[in-house]
Amino acid sequence: MKFISILTDFGIDQEYPAVCKAVILSICPSAVIVDISHTVPSYDIEEGAFMLKNFIKYAPVGVHVAVIDPGVGTQRRGIAIATRRGDFLVGPDNGVLMEAAHFLRIEKVAVLEDKEYMLEKVYSSFHGRDIFAPAAAHLLKGVPITALGRMLDIKELVHVPRLPPSEDETAIYGTVLRIDRFGNIQTTIDAEIVPKKPALTMRIGEKELTLPFVKTFGEVGPGACLVYEDSDGLITLSQNQGDASRLLGAEKRMEVLIFK
Amino acid sequence: MKFISILTDFGIDQEYPAVCKAVILSICPSAVIVDISHTVPSYDIEEGAFMLKNFIKYAPVGVHVAVIDPGVGTQRRGIAIATRRGDFLVGPDNGVLMEAAHFLRIEKVAVLEDKEYMLEKVYSSFHGRDIFAPAAAHLLKGVPITALGRMLDIKELVHVPRLPPSEDETAIYGTVLRIDRFGNIQTTIDAEIVPKKPALTMRIGEKELTLPFVKTFGEVGPGACLVYEDSDGLITLSQNQGDASRLLGAEKRMEVLIFK
Amino acid sequence: MKFISILTDFGIDQEYPAVCKAVILSICPSAVIVDISHTVPSYDIEEGAFMLKNFIKYAPVGVHVAVIDPGVGTQRRGIAIATRRGDFLVGPDNGVLMEAAHFLRIEKVAVLEDKEYMLEKVYSSFHGRDIFAPAAAHLLKGVPITALGRMLDIKELVHVPRLPPSEDETAIYGTVLRIDRFGNIQTTIDAEIVPKKPALTMRIGEKELTLPFVKTFGEVGPGACLVYEDSDGLITLSQNQGDASRLLGAEKRMEVLIFK
Repeated sequence: MKFISILTDFGIDQEYPAVCKAVILSICPSAVIVDISHTVPSYDIEEGAFMLKNFIKYAPVGVHVAVIDPGVGTQRRGIAIATRRGDFLVGPDNGVLMEAAHFLRIEKVAVLEDKEYMLEKVYSSFHGRDIFAPAAAHLLKGVPITALGRMLDIKELVHVPRLPPSEDETAIYGTVLRIDRFGNIQTTIDAEIVPKKPALTMRIGEKELTLPFVKTFGEVGPGACLVYEDSDGLITLSQNQGDASRLLGAEKRMEVLIFK
Repeated sequence: MKFISILTDFGIDQEYPAVCKAVILSICPSAVIVDISHTVPSYDIEEGAFMLKNFIKYAPVGVHVAVIDPGVGTQRRGIAIATRRGDFLVGPDNGVLMEAAHFLRIEKVAVLEDKEYMLEKVYSSFHGRDIFAPAAAHLLKGVPITALGRMLDIKELVHVPRLPPSEDETAIYGTVLRIDRFGNIQTTIDAEIVPKKPALTMRIGEKELTLPFVKTFGEVGPGACLVYEDSDGLITLSQNQGDASRLLGAEKRMEVLIFK
Repeated sequence: MKFISILTDFGIDQEYPAVCKAVILSICPSAVIVDISHTVPSYDIEEGAFMLKNFIKYAPVGVHVAVIDPGVGTQRRGIAIATRRGDFLVGPDNGVLMEAAHFLRIEKVAVLEDKEYMLEKVYSSFHGRDIFAPAAAHLLKGVPITALGRMLDIKELVHVPRLPPSEDETAIYGTVLRIDRFGNIQTTIDAEIVPKKPALTMRIGEKELTLPFVKTFGEVGPGACLVYEDSDGLITLSQNQGDASRLLGAEKRMEVLIFK
């Protein structure tokens, strides 16, 4: 299977994601394409990087393209990364590929500069279509990464300036990573570093509260709040059959603190 | 063709639906996947059940997964249903599969309990990825349903408590089933039981009105309201080139009454 | 590869697009389907026609279905168009296919009238499922266009009444074609007819302004506005890392004027 996945912040209302897929299938007709999402918050490299990593953990070996790019149309370069697992990552050198790259282990990095592997006319405002989709499709077809451009050293790549959770004697410190459709509040705090107590005292924004630390929603009544290790292995606050983010006024990037 | 469809209330903004598809393709690389929808109203089992039935009527024989689950993370069990047409239905035992199951005729039901057909680590908050997607992909590959877990009797399954439309001497009674993007008001009332009169006198919520009962929108002028048998065979109220739900203040589950 | 693309205004919340894809795969199991978009503004033939043309420019040769149809359920006919490039276009005869058709060059046009290539029961409110998807899938399988119905003359087809940009001695006149997720304001004005000056004086709605006419966003500072030739070859107004449409109060179909 020639597996390729694509993640963008293009939205779904215009033809942009479809055009990228059309370009991929024109170059590699046997490609099996999965859309990771096209509604990443505009320009949100951090969330895109996190989603890409979450996805590739469960994905077949393949080529993964991510186009989230506040610097689109500037001189920011495009890159392809070959990894130890055998996957290739393709996108802008702005950090969006790096969480996935570290998970998969970086082997080689190429700058996308050989015009033979781009569309004939390259528009500065649609590198997804004109540079990234063609590069990805050519890698999928078997073109060696060394053909795409000169090799880069890993140290030359841009990283996302994500603050990892920290801790001291009294507490663990993190932030709200994202809030999903159900109002679940996902934090940056790894469940592994949190003490296995039946209840956790936390601060989220200005609110301080003590919540049951459970395995399943069913352990609390409808309407009650809870804390648990979510399916990404992170500490998440939820309300059983309710919207915790609305109840607690939580927002992305808000500070979260768990007392030890 | 190894056909598989997937229906969830995960939304399209996170990587959740894509991760399920990645799991399916990892297990069964030749799967042909169609997304039924991922924006079913959160936890709306009734609407999900209706959509799944509407879809499978027109779908090739295959495996169909539905994950709409207010009880996610509780002890609610997962099931697979083998049907007479040859399809398999996979999802939680909460009723979401049952309209489709009755249409396709139930042959066998298994509880999803054999860990060999789940992902290695099962998180209570993402059974879609860890239990349902793998079970579906294994069925698609040819694993017999009896391998997934012990057989259940049909009578042990949970059904959706949907109130069917009723009638007496003066009227037919139903509710608003759903309202689509164009503001069309779809009711639970089967067009077959409605008298073929040129106009119907109806009550929707508090409003009473008499509308032309037509075959096509073109039979009334722009802006006019109409009643017709929609493409699901149900009575629907629309406004030609307008939004009937806004005009009539209609909402999901509102009572609808058609005078005989 | 049996390539087929589909563009509708059905939205993504109901099962409608999935049902069309199920019908296509039932008839032609080896179809490779790409969704162009399903959230074209309701009934917006002009925007649909533009999106379809933009897409097919980059698409493999195949069958392309567009269902955007304010006249759905009236006596408006369905058509299939065979083109010189080898593609087929399928949809209502209301203009939505015509921009793509002119780009691909029309060879033959058939009215969709042979019931053998429709679903058994045709509902007037879902021609996408009952007429267009089956016709497209049969063409994809190799059924000749002449089998679908009688041939039409090109002059008999309905065209979109789109006003092309015009110019006189002092200015070029166009309108706002669409506004994307990032607030970029795409105009109907072809970049080729605009003088290559370092800055352009324009009027958009009631606002008059002079903006740098650049190649890349990076040529202006964050928050600054700019004009450039976008990836469709059209004049677009943007704000670097901002939302130009909000800043300038721009709306679809607003008049745009570029002084020479």
